Amino acid sequence: MLASALRRAATAVARPRPQRLHTLPRACSFATRSYPRPVLQIPQLRKAFHTTPAKSEQAPGSPPPPPPKRRLPSFRTLLKYSAYIAGSTVLGVFVLTGCIFLHDAFTYNEKHIEGVPVEPLALQPERGGPKNLPITKSYLSDVEDAEATELKGKPHLVIVGGGWGAIGVLNTLNPGDYHVTLISPETYTTFTPLLPSAAVGTVQVRSLVEPLRKIVARLHGHVLNAKAVDLVMSERLLEVEVVSPSDTKQHIYVPYDKLVIAVGSTSSTHGVPGLENCFQLKTIGDAQKIRQRIIDNFEVAALPTTSQEERKRLLSFVVCGGGPTGIEAAAEIYDLCQEDIIKYYPKICRKDVSIHVIQSRSHILNTYSEAISKYAEDKFDRDGVDLITNARVGSVHPDKVIYTTRTKDGKTEDHEIPANFVLWSTGIAMNPFVARVSSLLPNQVHKKAIEVDAHLRVKGAPLGEVYAIGDASTIETSIISHLLELVDESDKNNDGKIDFEEWQIMVNQIKKRIPMSEEHLSRVRELFELYDSDADNSLNLNELAVLLQEIGNKITALPATAQVASQQGKYLGKKFAKLARQRRVLAANEVAPDAGDEFVSGPFRYRHLGSLAYIGNAAVFDLGKYSFMGGLAAMYAWRSVYWSEQVSSRTRALLMIDWIVRGIWGRDLSRL
Amino acid sequence: MLASALRRAATAVARPRPQRLHTLPRACSFATRSYPRPVLQIPQLRKAFHTTPAKSEQAPGSPPPPPPKRRLPSFRTLLKYSAYIAGSTVLGVFVLTGCIFLHDAFTYNEKHIEGVPVEPLALQPERGGPKNLPITKSYLSDVEDAEATELKGKPHLVIVGGGWGAIGVLNTLNPGDYHVTLISPETYTTFTPLLPSAAVGTVQVRSLVEPLRKIVARLHGHVLNAKAVDLVMSERLLEVEVVSPSDTKQHIYVPYDKLVIAVGSTSSTHGVPGLENCFQLKTIGDAQKIRQRIIDNFEVAALPTTSQEERKRLLSFVVCGGGPTGIEAAAEIYDLCQEDIIKYYPKICRKDVSIHVIQSRSHILNTYSEAISKYAEDKFDRDGVDLITNARVGSVHPDKVIYTTRTKDGKTEDHEIPANFVLWSTGIAMNPFVARVSSLLPNQVHKKAIEVDAHLRVKGAPLGEVYAIGDASTIETSIISHLLELVDESDKNNDGKIDFEEWQIMVNQIKKRIPMSEEHLSRVRELFELYDSDADNSLNLNELAVLLQEIGNKITALPATAQVASQQGKYLGKKFAKLARQRRVLAANEVAPDAGDEFVSGPFRYRHLGSLAYIGNAAVFDLGKYSFMGGLAAMYAWRSVYWSEQVSSRTRALLMIDWIVRGIWGRDLSRL
Repeated sequence: MLASALRRAATAVARPRPQRLHTLPRACSFATRSYPRPVLQIPQLRKAFHTTPAKSEQAPGSPPPPPPKRRLPSFRTLLKYSAYIAGSTVLGVFVLTGCIFLHDAFTYNEKHIEGVPVEPLALQPERGGPKNLPITKSYLSDVEDAEATELKGKPHLVIVGGGWGAIGVLNTLNPGDYHVTLISPETYTTFTPLLPSAAVGTVQVRSLVEPLRKIVARLHGHVLNAKAVDLVMSERLLEVEVVSPSDTKQHIYVPYDKLVIAVGSTSSTHGVPGLENCFQLKTIGDAQKIRQRIIDNFEVAALPTTSQEERKRLLSFVVCGGGPTGIEAAAEIYDLCQEDIIKYYPKICRKDVSIHVIQSRSHILNTYSEAISKYAEDKFDRDGVDLITNARVGSVHPDKVIYTTRTKDGKTEDHEIPANFVLWSTGIAMNPFVARVSSLLPNQVHKKAIEVDAHLRVKGAPLGEVYAIGDASTIETSIISHLLELVDESDKNNDGKIDFEEWQIMVNQIKKRIPMSEEHLSRVRELFELYDSDADNSLNLNELAVLLQEIGNKITALPATAQVASQQGKYLGKKFAKLARQRRVLAANEVAPDAGDEFVSGPFRYRHLGSLAYIGNAAVFDLGKYSFMGGLAAMYAWRSVYWSEQVSSRTRALLMIDWIVRGIWGRDLSRL
Repeated sequence: MLASALRRAATAVARPRPQRLHTLPRACSFATRSYPRPVLQIPQLRKAFHTTPAKSEQAPGSPPPPPPKRRLPSFRTLLKYSAYIAGSTVLGVFVLTGCIFLHDAFTYNEKHIEGVPVEPLALQPERGGPKNLPITKSYLSDVEDAEATELKGKPHLVIVGGGWGAIGVLNTLNPGDYHVTLISPETYTTFTPLLPSAAVGTVQVRSLVEPLRKIVARLHGHVLNAKAVDLVMSERLLEVEVVSPSDTKQHIYVPYDKLVIAVGSTSSTHGVPGLENCFQLKTIGDAQKIRQRIIDNFEVAALPTTSQEERKRLLSFVVCGGGPTGIEAAAEIYDLCQEDIIKYYPKICRKDVSIHVIQSRSHILNTYSEAISKYAEDKFDRDGVDLITNARVGSVHPDKVIYTTRTKDGKTEDHEIPANFVLWSTGIAMNPFVARVSSLLPNQVHKKAIEVDAHLRVKGAPLGEVYAIGDASTIETSIISHLLELVDESDKNNDGKIDFEEWQIMVNQIKKRIPMSEEHLSRVRELFELYDSDADNSLNLNELAVLLQEIGNKITALPATAQVASQQGKYLGKKFAKLARQRRVLAANEVAPDAGDEFVSGPFRYRHLGSLAYIGNAAVFDLGKYSFMGGLAAMYAWRSVYWSEQVSSRTRALLMIDWIVRGIWGRDLSRL
């Protein structure tokens, strides 16, 4: 494209247009004649804006201009425009290139590094804690420069995990407030929503990752490439597993003042046998494996020794789960076949492709509005993607998937799909560290995550020390468990009963503790009368218990999405920043450290900004009140939303480039 | 950069400059006043080119313009220029973006594919050959469209390998001449010279690969993702190993009329024990492994539990071999530390880095000119890279390298370097298929490659059927083996002796057979007299034998470089194209098929275009006659050479982007 633009420009600019001169208003012609060629364009340009000068404005005495030719000029104007635009395009590109080169030339550094100050304690950490492991009281870079040295005295904030939650915290903290340490087994953070695209090479995996060290650098923080395994809350020690140089595993303690658990979740098996034969789509590694398997399948399918039946099996792709991830994966695989496979593999390979989505509910994207599910289903129907709803996966085998459906008369029927690619994208479960932490706390009963209060503090842990966010956590929804404190706070006349005035106080208390209960507590009076069974115009404990229990059940937990994790992370980061700023204020007001959270900020409130999904050269948006769906336009909108959400300008640029590259050269079909 | 440009432009364009108007030549002022704002710039622009209009050219009757102020305008001119440039930059960028979007919107295809014609033979290949394996007489895509069907009748050209040689052939063939089949275990071709850059993330591996299918598509050829294992020359069957859908290996026969062996080579061990502890740098996979190991080393070195000694070992990088690959790898590792590690890891990690190059000769880059070796050595010396020359590697262990040097008095001394990364980049050896082929032919004696004649035909194989190029092959240098034919051809008077006239004939015959002998046969008369030991003014067989033997020994084989492989590939491709074009001519002249090569083209001649190497923000060029070395400028030159050699516009664009990205955001430090 650029090339052609350049060529157009070259020709357009090079061609001199003497014959044009006579068509200029004479009064100005001297100007043009006396100038070098480029300026030849100026009067033309002027014409572009205003074909002939208005008589009234002519300078007195200057002869009238020749009558303008109506048809020709308009055409010429066009020419001039294009010449001008082409010209500036070239110039623009040159300028940019120049700048880039100039900048690049200054990025090569020759300076050498001399002695670096390091504390002996950092080189020889002392041992301690219940298991007598090395404790990282001091870090290698703790005294290497002034900033680091100053941070050494600040409270130690340790963040476990490198996903949406952790990044949310890191990006909202202020440099200099905390001595930050990030614990992650990976060296990078991943932009998970685009993993399906990466899995088929629409975008490159590199465009989805940003090194954690670059993000932490803003806070002069530290990164430990380690895996959290255990927690000693009494001594505020986090036990992590690191790789020792001799490739053996080694455990060490990381001390903390504040700990944020943001380790995410693992996929739940739903007790389905054979999940080891499935692909997941949670990490970069998953995306790479999927990509290789897909290309492998097509390569083997293209071999002359592969039988028809085998070819059909190799090219049948099964997705278990009709949520956004599954749907987008199916859509991306379809795109790959339509736009690239068809060009470079024997056509029969394209013909024999079949894509299946197995969904347990009656609709795909069932968390979205009905209109959206409908739209997506129609699109897939047109594309010949096989949607199997109201079906549950029975078992997954290396060469086939078994699923069951219910017939009208309630009997279950088994079906099987031969396949060489099965993607499992449904449900989440606790990851081992989360399970361990929740097992340490008696009052942690939730099956899938750590229960936290409205301030995202882990329930049962010392207040203000341990927080959990994202998939790893779930905000408590049970009100009944607060019954006694609530009564204490609201039963002003201590008659063990709650009259309406007291009920109003209690409602506010509940809202403060469990903000998510708000919508269910709007109709205060009604509720009061509804549950006042003995109509004594007051609620006794039993009546209250029922009331709170039933309201609690109405509250639905937040979904395990990137959006929730990110908002929780930002909430914590902002709160920590406030805590740091108001440290003195808090001390002055003699606020107990464990009450700091309530003092500086309200409880966490989730604002749903809508959900979106890509469904193959089309996209759908569910923005709560109204929803939006459509073809290419929607797809570009979908891209721009994700584009704007990028963690760094680098990934933003790379993504844009990936999309452009796909457009010009198609997807890269190398098995890499 | 763009952002700032945009901002500059915005302000520059937005700001109206009414105060400027009065400085215009009155004759023109009407024009400006009557136009919308953009045109405000036009008179300013004009001034930019020519500050005041020449008196002589003023329209009669128009009053004289106000005297121009000398200093101010020049400044304004500057302003105007920058405004103009910024403006057009923005415009240019917008135009480009627009074009790209427009183009992109047309790359999404919705059309569905109906029945595809396939020959039954392609679905059920019949068996045959000595091992009774399936024979791919017909391919899946052989009849899917008109072009394919037409090609079916053409001679079957089978190319084994996907490297420089193979690509050289593919890119010089004409579509429609041959039924082309490419056999490669990889799905892509690799731009090997930049592997060292990819190994440290200066460029991305994806930017070095191009899918083979996209290259073959130009010839409507076929790609078999397979590994060549054996050859049946009598029946013209190539035995390849493919992966069957059940992940078991399976062997099939691929029939050929012409076979090109371009499988490259493997690294030679030189009998050094422990090479399994080394990294190689021949494939993308190698580069990825190296990248991960390097990042791993730094991550572990950054752990507080790693002792000083271990840290030094983790950060000591050893390169065995002082050739271009080794040197560039060392230089790139140095760059990584200087430009990126230092920013994001504890400074002590940078300080403890040590890079060692072990070279068996007395200089690194010893195939280059002396000045270049010197320059490179000085550069490394400044950078503190440890060059160990005149040393041979004794053994490689997981945690250290042992090498030996000679003391003055000839004794050998053992030294050891603790290291956690050892790169082996020296010497080549036969890969298994090449070894197998050469074992099939009694007259193949060469240790490291298949011997081919001056036309690149495998010696001993049926003429005009089997060719070998690149690292897999070596052009015969022995003249003595041709003694008898030479005598037959030149001994006109059949007296069993060669007089000077006959000797002259013979020299031409030799040059034709072994073009590389040319330089050694320049002094025809001298040679004749020198070896005519009995001075009877003629050479008898014994004298000839000595002469030819000694000249043969003088000839040095071609180096195993990408340049040689590529030139050989192009030579073959052009020759095959000629053969196809002249098929009728050849038939008319009753040229035996095995004589076709000589008929249509001369022997292969290698033209050395020079060697270059990157040595860390500097580069060296050895262009035979003169050499060129220097800093950044040379580095940019080095880049542009490789840039121009790219196999596709795609990789070209991606490389450029990688270099720009490195300049702006540095290398990606994710372990990926």
